[in-house]
Amino acid sequence: MADPRFFRLAGPFTLGEIATQVGAEVAPGADPGRSISDVRPLGEAGPDHLSFLDNKRYADAFQASRAGACLVDAEMAAQAPSGMALLVSKKPRLAFARACHLFYPEAEARSARHASAAIDPSAVLGERVEVEAGAVIGAGAEIGARCRIGANAVIGAGVVLGEDTVVGANASISHALVGRRVVIYPGARIGQPGFGFEVSAQGVVKVPQLGRVVIGDDVEVGANTTIDRGSGPDTVIGRGAMIDNLVQIGHNVVVGDGCILVAQVGISGSTRLGNFVVLAGQAGISGHLTIGDRAVVGPQSGITKDLPADSRVMGLPAMPMAEYARLSAQLKRMGRKGK
Amino acid sequence: MADPRFFRLAGPFTLGEIATQVGAEVAPGADPGRSISDVRPLGEAGPDHLSFLDNKRYADAFQASRAGACLVDAEMAAQAPSGMALLVSKKPRLAFARACHLFYPEAEARSARHASAAIDPSAVLGERVEVEAGAVIGAGAEIGARCRIGANAVIGAGVVLGEDTVVGANASISHALVGRRVVIYPGARIGQPGFGFEVSAQGVVKVPQLGRVVIGDDVEVGANTTIDRGSGPDTVIGRGAMIDNLVQIGHNVVVGDGCILVAQVGISGSTRLGNFVVLAGQAGISGHLTIGDRAVVGPQSGITKDLPADSRVMGLPAMPMAEYARLSAQLKRMGRKGK
Amino acid sequence: MADPRFFRLAGPFTLGEIATQVGAEVAPGADPGRSISDVRPLGEAGPDHLSFLDNKRYADAFQASRAGACLVDAEMAAQAPSGMALLVSKKPRLAFARACHLFYPEAEARSARHASAAIDPSAVLGERVEVEAGAVIGAGAEIGARCRIGANAVIGAGVVLGEDTVVGANASISHALVGRRVVIYPGARIGQPGFGFEVSAQGVVKVPQLGRVVIGDDVEVGANTTIDRGSGPDTVIGRGAMIDNLVQIGHNVVVGDGCILVAQVGISGSTRLGNFVVLAGQAGISGHLTIGDRAVVGPQSGITKDLPADSRVMGLPAMPMAEYARLSAQLKRMGRKGK
Repeated sequence: MADPRFFRLAGPFTLGEIATQVGAEVAPGADPGRSISDVRPLGEAGPDHLSFLDNKRYADAFQASRAGACLVDAEMAAQAPSGMALLVSKKPRLAFARACHLFYPEAEARSARHASAAIDPSAVLGERVEVEAGAVIGAGAEIGARCRIGANAVIGAGVVLGEDTVVGANASISHALVGRRVVIYPGARIGQPGFGFEVSAQGVVKVPQLGRVVIGDDVEVGANTTIDRGSGPDTVIGRGAMIDNLVQIGHNVVVGDGCILVAQVGISGSTRLGNFVVLAGQAGISGHLTIGDRAVVGPQSGITKDLPADSRVMGLPAMPMAEYARLSAQLKRMGRKGK
Repeated sequence: MADPRFFRLAGPFTLGEIATQVGAEVAPGADPGRSISDVRPLGEAGPDHLSFLDNKRYADAFQASRAGACLVDAEMAAQAPSGMALLVSKKPRLAFARACHLFYPEAEARSARHASAAIDPSAVLGERVEVEAGAVIGAGAEIGARCRIGANAVIGAGVVLGEDTVVGANASISHALVGRRVVIYPGARIGQPGFGFEVSAQGVVKVPQLGRVVIGDDVEVGANTTIDRGSGPDTVIGRGAMIDNLVQIGHNVVVGDGCILVAQVGISGSTRLGNFVVLAGQAGISGHLTIGDRAVVGPQSGITKDLPADSRVMGLPAMPMAEYARLSAQLKRMGRKGK
Repeated sequence: MADPRFFRLAGPFTLGEIATQVGAEVAPGADPGRSISDVRPLGEAGPDHLSFLDNKRYADAFQASRAGACLVDAEMAAQAPSGMALLVSKKPRLAFARACHLFYPEAEARSARHASAAIDPSAVLGERVEVEAGAVIGAGAEIGARCRIGANAVIGAGVVLGEDTVVGANASISHALVGRRVVIYPGARIGQPGFGFEVSAQGVVKVPQLGRVVIGDDVEVGANTTIDRGSGPDTVIGRGAMIDNLVQIGHNVVVGDGCILVAQVGISGSTRLGNFVVLAGQAGISGHLTIGDRAVVGPQSGITKDLPADSRVMGLPAMPMAEYARLSAQLKRMGRKGK
């Protein structure tokens, strides 16, 4: 069981209830009324627990498991140990994720404002907004219903948060319009001025950054990630984008819907990512580029030119992944032979 | 117009006032008394707006623009559409940056201390210092006139901030002497102990870090950037250095005047950068090196040896940029041919 | 002398006291009763100061030094200038680190809770815990004796901190069990959910992250570093691990005892590091790997396969360090010759 100091266990639920909630079918022979008390990995599950199998490599663990119930695909169902109740799903891992939500539901926002929070009188808070200790909400900010604002987070003047959005501890947001159901992790920095200046004979002249950050619904922004506001145009994060920790997004960048940006990625100013682009960890993208839909960039790669849709590239310099694999083998050979 | 929730528009100004403020000349035929209400890019500007052209590539947009006034260089002036008033400047982009400051001036510090700020009685605050909600100022700190301390920022005991310095939300500063007109972005960490320890038979012995961080005038420190204090000598950031987000600066590092450090750069302990050095994004510099004045290091490059002044290098391993371009072409060829 | 605004000088101490404390021997001819007032590098030390020599390269500075006393190894003792009192140690640098602790002791936690701190009534604080301004401590948290909680730091519900642990300003910790004598630097983020989701036809389904972060004794976690909690298993940081700034540690990662992770390193989910592994700056480790004890990975390297114990690798792709050195020389040659 998850540590009760940190997680609240719901349930128990019957197999039938679980099947309905996660989109699976109770296999013939299993009792839909059977009670399940918790979710567990195959190796740790007992007779009251639900587990899952999503990879044939774990068939041995599946057959040895004492799990009372298990999510599997139809193909693997025949290999189940006797006595195990099966829930059949085409995507057992996805269904298990849903089961975890069922057993460990997210805490709902409580309509509560800690006495130490500093909320400007002109800010507008929707119903059931929770504001934790030390949080600061600036003048004219609009906080949607059921938002949760974490301890010591700072929401700047005029910022708009859609409904059900969560802001983590110590995060700060300014000059931004944020969608619904967005999750901003602790320490994220959103809306500060971008890195813009002109060099003159008298020294650096900063270019005023007059744009905003506009974040779509269902986005995640990782811990200590930084998203600068636009210089005139906006910096835009498309609906459903998943952004990991310590990512840098420069001013005027457009991140398309459903993009996945893994930790420590950096995107320079004014670059546009299409939809469903994947950037693996520590990849770097130069400024003013256009990256096509569904492009995939490998870890630590450096992108200095536009990429067409459906590209799959890797390396420094970046090249198609198959070519990178070949080059990589050759470089290793050169190192070994010294010629 | 910039979003009025976040930006306050000043003006209107006459062409003559603008020309004086930005260092441009009203072209013959233009009316110095013409009133301008806002700044806009060429494609969005109307008869009341000022725009700019700084690149011949945008000559078409220039000729099609409905902007009432435009900053251009003398060479392009002849191609202006009829009716457009011109302000002639050798550096139209720089002049436009100044015009943006004119129309959207930075908010001035208000002499205000939020009731929830915790200011040690022994701290000394200059005139017209603004302290936002939840900010903490430690014992003996000295805060110069017109500084603004952002919400939930933490200024440690004894820290000195020069006049007109701005500290962003949730930033923390300790063991540091900071100059005038410095801008420290949200979440920056300045003055924590460096990564110093000795390994003994009984385990790690930390080496006390007894130096400071000393930051010159007009420096910018980006969001979530970290600057460790010196171990005995100081960590020093020279006047006018521009440091982007998520940069790491180790103990005892010296960054010269006017250096530009792009996002996610890392500089290991005791390395010294000369003046006007440029490190592109994600570049890494080993410890105990000397990097000469005006050296330029390309993105994601790894520097493991001293660099003379005016070097231009790139790559892993780093080499002169022209050589890197050649190598890069060869590596791509090797990947394609598989030999 | 270290800046008295930031550091409190203890002492003076006699040579004999120092020798005992740092594990050195007073050399014949030196007066154990001689009083020493401070520590200094060789070039800055005067007759009242203790310095050290740990490298023959600095023999000239040693002979020219005016230091009243110096830590040296037996071999170099004979070269000391006349009048310098010697403390002989096999590890002069380590002994000097200890002397620095003697002259500049860490401030002890004061039993003090700032009025602006928000401590949940159900949190349990040990004796002599110090809680600075604006810090937040959640329901059911357990804070060990003599812990110091920095200004505006956030300790989430149920978090456990062992005795003598220090949490820096603006750091946040949730879902974590933290050992004794741990130092968490400003802005570190510990315990937020990992980057886990499944893609479904209806969009992304987040996978609940039901594990914790478990941190051993004597660990350091650098400024703005991020450590995600486990997805079901825990994320584990072994005893004595030293983690620098801006490091990313994904969910379910296990970092062994005594590992050293230099700034901006990234470790993807479910990777396991053995004990005493060293990852140099900006190195990236893919997920689900096993890295053997004492493996050393060079800066900016990319690890995509398991590494056996005692490996020493570097590069993109990573290879044994000797091979990387050879390859590196060849690549530079290719760049120069253009063939």
